[in-house]
Order: sequence, then C-alpha cells, then structure tokens
Amino acid sequence: MDCCVIPLRHGGLSLVQTTDFFYPLVEDPYMMGRIACANVLSDLYAMGITECDNMLMLLSVSQKMNDKERERVMPLMIKGFRDAAEEGGTSVTGGQTVVNPWIIIGGVATVVCQPTDFIMPDSAVPGDVLVLTKPLGTQVAVNAHQWLDMPEKWNKIKLVVSREEVEQAYQEAMFNMAMLNRTAAALMHTFNAHAATDITGFGILGHARNLAQQQRSDVAFVIHNLPIIAKMAAISKACGNRFGLLQGTSSETSGGLLICLPREQAARFCEGAAEGQQAWIIGIVEKGNRCARIIDKPRIIEVPPRGSIGGAQEGGSNNTNTPSPGDIQSTVVN
Amino acid sequence: MDCCVIPLRHGGLSLVQTTDFFYPLVEDPYMMGRIACANVLSDLYAMGITECDNMLMLLSVSQKMNDKERERVMPLMIKGFRDAAEEGGTSVTGGQTVVNPWIIIGGVATVVCQPTDFIMPDSAVPGDVLVLTKPLGTQVAVNAHQWLDMPEKWNKIKLVVSREEVEQAYQEAMFNMAMLNRTAAALMHTFNAHAATDITGFGILGHARNLAQQQRSDVAFVIHNLPIIAKMAAISKACGNRFGLLQGTSSETSGGLLICLPREQAARFCEGAAEGQQAWIIGIVEKGNRCARIIDKPRIIEVPPRGSIGGAQEGGSNNTNTPSPGDIQSTVVN
Repeated sequence: MDCCVIPLRHGGLSLVQTTDFFYPLVEDPYMMGRIACANVLSDLYAMGITECDNMLMLLSVSQKMNDKERERVMPLMIKGFRDAAEEGGTSVTGGQTVVNPWIIIGGVATVVCQPTDFIMPDSAVPGDVLVLTKPLGTQVAVNAHQWLDMPEKWNKIKLVVSREEVEQAYQEAMFNMAMLNRTAAALMHTFNAHAATDITGFGILGHARNLAQQQRSDVAFVIHNLPIIAKMAAISKACGNRFGLLQGTSSETSGGLLICLPREQAARFCEGAAEGQQAWIIGIVEKGNRCARIIDKPRIIEVPPRGSIGGAQEGGSNNTNTPSPGDIQSTVVN
Repeated sequence: MDCCVIPLRHGGLSLVQTTDFFYPLVEDPYMMGRIACANVLSDLYAMGITECDNMLMLLSVSQKMNDKERERVMPLMIKGFRDAAEEGGTSVTGGQTVVNPWIIIGGVATVVCQPTDFIMPDSAVPGDVLVLTKPLGTQVAVNAHQWLDMPEKWNKIKLVVSREEVEQAYQEAMFNMAMLNRTAAALMHTFNAHAATDITGFGILGHARNLAQQQRSDVAFVIHNLPIIAKMAAISKACGNRFGLLQGTSSETSGGLLICLPREQAARFCEGAAEGQQAWIIGIVEKGNRCARIIDKPRIIEVPPRGSIGGAQEGGSNNTNTPSPGDIQSTVVN
C-alpha cells in the first residue's frame, strides 16, 4: 500500500500516513519543491484521500553549496513545497533540516479520517479497466534534457528528436510531476474505483504488479496502451531501451494514478476533463493469478506538450484522451 | 514547540507529530537505532504525551558501504529502532529508505489525542523549579571516545581522565541517549508540570531559552546545577571549553526533559526513582522577561556511570539525585 493505515482508539477513525524524500532531479528549485510535495501527497491520493491534515518537510542543505547558493536555492525550493501543500489544502507545520553532501527534499503527509474517506486498494474484479492519469516518460525527459549539454550522449538521440522537442518534453514532464493527483482522488469516489496506486520508481509495470498482488479476487492486469510524453518512446528506443520505457519498467517521479474502475465508470472518469484531469484507459482486468503484464505490441499514445497544440489544450484543463484499441472502452474528449 | 499540534475535524481531537533524523554518532549500530528512535519519541514525551500511534522510519544507506557492511550494519540499526519503538508502545509501519553518501537514521512519531493528553509548554510561573531527567555531556563523551584512537587529541585530555573512565562515560552516554523519556512524560501529568522541552542540539541553555520565550507569564529560568556524566566537565575544561559544556551550550543527543514544576511537586517528581527515572532539580523560575541563564559558578553534579557504584544503582532503576544548593528545594533519594 502507498500509505500506512492505523486504526485509532477514537470513534472509528484511522490515521493514514506516508513519507517520501529524494534528491533533486530538475534544475528549477521552485518546481523541485512542488514536485517533492506532489509526490508525497500522491500516496494519500492513491487511496482516494483528498484531504491532508498536516505536512512536515524533510530537507537537507548540501554542504557543497556556498552561502549565496544556499540563500538563492533553498527558499525557492521551500516555497515550491509550501505552495503545493497549500494547493493540496494543507500546510507545512514542521519538519527537520540537516546538512548533507546532497540536497534532500521530501515530506510526511498525515490525515485522520473516517473509513469512508479512503479506498483500500484491493477490490479489483475481472471486467474492470485500468486508467492512468499522467503520461509516462518523466525519467527519459529529465535525462534527455541533461544530455543537451553532453555531446556524446546527445549524439545517440539527435536523429530521433530535436533540441526543442527535448526542451518541451522536459517542461511537460516538470509540469506533470508537479501536478497534484488530488482531482483524480476525488473522481475515484465519484466513479467507484476498486483499487489504485501511484506510479513512481518501479515504473508502470512494477506498480501494476504490486497492485495486482494486493487484490482479493483472482485477477490479472493487462496493459494495452502506454500514454507517453511525445518523443520519449523514440528516445528510449534509440538508447537500446535502456530506460525500459516500452517495457513498463522506466522509473517515474510523482507519476499518475493507476486506477481500477468498473468499465462503464472508467469512460466517465476520463470525461472528468472538465475538472482538469487527464486520463487514459490503458488496459483491462481479467481473471488471473494476481500478476500484471504489457501486451506484445502496446499502442503508444504520444502525449503532446501543452501549449504546442492550440489554445484549447492550455494549462491544466486539457484532455488528451486517445481512442484505445481492441476490446478496451474507448473515450475521446475534445 | 517540540511537536506540531493540529486541531482535527473530529471530536476535539488533535494530531501531534514530530520528525527528527540525523547521522550516526556511536559505533554500535543497534544502539544507534535505539538512540534515533528515543530521540524522535522524546519530542512527544516533552509534551507529556506517553502514547504514540504510529512510527515511520527514515533511513539512508551509505553508498560507501559494500554489500557485506550493509548487511551487517543496517539490520542491526533497524532492529534497535524497532525495539525502542516497541518499548514506547508503538511500532514502525512504514518509512522511506534512500542511498546517500552518509548514513541517515530518524523517524516520524504521530499520535492523535485528547487535549488532556498533552501539556502545552507555556505555563511556567515564578516559584516553579526546573528539573532535568538525564545528565549532560553526551557530546563530550562521544568525542572523547573517538579521541582514544587519536593521539594528538588524546594528549590534550589524558591528564584529567583515564581511558577506562572515557570508556565508562561513553557507555553511560549511550545508555542515556537510548533511554526513553516516557516515564518522565507520565510523571509530568502526575506532578502537574507547567512546561517542558527536551535537550538536544542547542544544549541545556539554548533549550531553556527557547522554552522561556514561549511562556505566557513574565518568567526567567535560572540554572544553578549542572548534572554531568562523570569526568566530562573536566574534559570540557581541559579543551579550553570548546564544547561549552559548563556554559550550557554543548550539544546533546536524545537528552533529558527539562521540566518546570511547582516546587513541592518537583521534589516528589525526583522521588519517582522507583519508576526508574533519574531526575535532578537544577534551577528555579523567577519573575523576568522570558530569558534563561546559568549562574556564575554553577554546581557541577558528577553523575557516576551505572554499575560502577554498587548494586543499589544498577540498571535503569537507580537514582543519583544530589542535594542542590541555596534556595533550591533539595532532594536526596537513596
């Protein structure tokens, strides 16, 4: 599970809590703060929890920074973290800061709630479909962006992507990582979600497997579609699949929610576009022994960067759902 | 305040939460785990809270360790942390582990409680006395122990202390740092404590000042006595007071609680020896402008290592209270 759930001594309440911390992966300290906070909150959202009672910040300042660097970078990172917490309806009331060789940023999100406030991630049944709420490829985008200044690396991918496309993909990845999964959490209740998790270090397949293992029914998750930030699939291929993006093993940071929903509800979930939520139907739940797989030739859904495809898809309120093949319920909203 | 206190939406309950993490300072990984956990819980105990609903562990493995070192060290550290959590009536249900240049160990302690379960640290009044529940000098003991293998450093202190005494002081410091302040937290309720904090990085004087500043009444804290692990005062002096131990600025790890109590209750608090709690009356609360100071020539109370002073003071159930001078209520229990 993405959180720990502790039954309390008081009136049927539960304490739900999660912690996450890591090292900066984007250059913009403000965005890094936002991403770190979105990443912590995402574990609550994956359980359908939309409120957070308290946030603690975990921070380390790098001993390699001089005073000037520290004074420029750390307040921005803290502001980004605090702003995202506020967007999540909570605030940072405490935490701990140390000095370390590397910068660390993370937090602890805590909520006390009724059993009806959260959705235990164990009730998927055959016939459900799988929905994903952010495109994959953040790791590839972040790496490709670093390679812009590393000729040897850049040479490997320059035939499949332009510098501008890498820059756009990086911005798109940053935007997605910093976006809260809060709307998705609310929609999980509206549309009767059966189970969910968020996609981070183990990639889409790793987390799908973990989720499948927790199910009470004999189910298997089969992934048919991979929504991927535009051009990142091509980069991953050009690198000899070292990222494992098409195999579903590429690490993501602050990724989307992977949600199991009844088929008819899933279509309506994806229509939640009005609420600023992207979502794609990516697979199905069938009878099986609690495993997950990606079909042989999954359909790659190239998700274009926002702003590059006209005013109708600006900001956080666009929706790039794409028809899905075969026996999967298809949804097109535009 | 040592914790954040968040009023909840449910039945007058509050969420009380704290986090702390740091780098190992003793060589024994098991004891290090215990110390880290005791240090986290101590923030709850400083608010008179005796229960903890959940503990998360924050951990980093050093990238400089090889597999064998990692497999030997980390499980012991985790076991120490878990054992101390269990002693505190809670358990570790989650957390986060990363790879870092340095080892990090820490945690997050959370409780949901009624307002009567905690004591806000703001109600000291003139006439109260100050009680301390662990001796000072942990930092000096840890450093002196490292100097046993550093001839240049050792030469500075070898005239005032023997190798055996340093070894004993180190063991005593380790024992004290690993000891939970839980009994002290319970006694705070029994004896009507007005305010408390725990002694860590800012030293006794730094934390006394912080606590004084939070008081609602116009008070000043005056410290007359300094209970110090035997021989550590001499070492601090021999080093030209670089530790600031006698000035009250020497950093402590997982130190004791500094508690403001009504005078007549303080004596009885210290008699809590039967419950395995050490305690010394170290000063008074007088009228003043929310500051704290140590008198010119404070009385040094040399606290002998356990086991070195006879069977009556073995284990955790000894009590080395010492008469205190002047106008301070004195307590001798033996």
